[in-house]
Amino acid sequence: MTKVRDEVLAANEDYAGSFGDKAGLPMPPARRFAILTCMDARLDPAKFAGLAEGDAHVIRNAGGRASDDAIRSLVISHKLLGTKEWFVVHHTDCGMETFTDEIMRGLLRQSLDTAEIGPDGWKGVGQGPGSTAGDHIDWLTISDQAESVTADVKRIRAHPLVPQDVPVYGYIYDVRSGRLIEVPEATEAGKA
Amino acid sequence: MTKVRDEVLAANEDYAGSFGDKAGLPMPPARRFAILTCMDARLDPAKFAGLAEGDAHVIRNAGGRASDDAIRSLVISHKLLGTKEWFVVHHTDCGMETFTDEIMRGLLRQSLDTAEIGPDGWKGVGQGPGSTAGDHIDWLTISDQAESVTADVKRIRAHPLVPQDVPVYGYIYDVRSGRLIEVPEATEAGKA
Repeated sequence: MTKVRDEVLAANEDYAGSFGDKAGLPMPPARRFAILTCMDARLDPAKFAGLAEGDAHVIRNAGGRASDDAIRSLVISHKLLGTKEWFVVHHTDCGMETFTDEIMRGLLRQSLDTAEIGPDGWKGVGQGPGSTAGDHIDWLTISDQAESVTADVKRIRAHPLVPQDVPVYGYIYDVRSGRLIEVPEATEAGKA
Repeated sequence: MTKVRDEVLAANEDYAGSFGDKAGLPMPPARRFAILTCMDARLDPAKFAGLAEGDAHVIRNAGGRASDDAIRSLVISHKLLGTKEWFVVHHTDCGMETFTDEIMRGLLRQSLDTAEIGPDGWKGVGQGPGSTAGDHIDWLTISDQAESVTADVKRIRAHPLVPQDVPVYGYIYDVRSGRLIEVPEATEAGKA
């Protein structure tokens, strides 16, 4: 057991110990909405959006991007489990703004070890072996948050499996204030 | 503004109002681990695993599956942001166990409206138009949780961009008790 595993299991023991009436929650989200956001450690969607267990679907990946897999999840969320409104939330100071596909591919070709970031950007460290398997991956990097949110809302809106009557809202979460800031052009593009 | 948007923004206002020293959190996860789990509304990874803001990456999709997009996120998590241990957490009573690709494709061909589930399984409701765009999507359904967790840990372990020194653990979260139950064959397959 690593320290992290011990800690996670001890925290879980505490949580399960006072689980109470959450045992009876049904599968479909009670408040009928879904949030797509970034995996970033600073973001806690349950806290920043006020979710209790059972309320809403939460989909997270690097960047909070509308990848094919995020759209797979959103379609299941609506078609089978009845969500009726979707939020796309990107955030300030996102790691996805610090690199490009070219940079990531170069770093991975050199080594799989964790790279370091300095004033001049990412610097490869570590010994090989690296891999060229990153060369064919679209890393879904971000150069401007309002643009990325708007592009993702538009991609969701235009998808053939997304019904027209599900509104999609676009927000940026500010990691310095905890505040959700609407991106009006995204929400406009995502209107039902 | 819908009721849901009003409620989310009001909850966010409260959260931001007492944000305190979270404003100074750095981008890399302080506790250097990541959790891949399901979007299910009943799961709150921060609560069931004891995470504070800034602690760990959380990746979520329908099923908690090791999709290409989840692996994209995990590789970024390690290569750029330094996580060193990964948890894959599927759960009991998962929606992904209630259908097959064939069922989902049939439902979507009929209509994009939310379907209903009854004693005989899913039943299409609603008027068209439906879409054949679901025919080419692998919906990543689940027939047995221990098998799906183990398969996903193995897929991650075998990926050319995943370093051998990152252990991958497999768990099932029990939605009736809040408890994480280890899947030993998954954790064994994911050993560093």
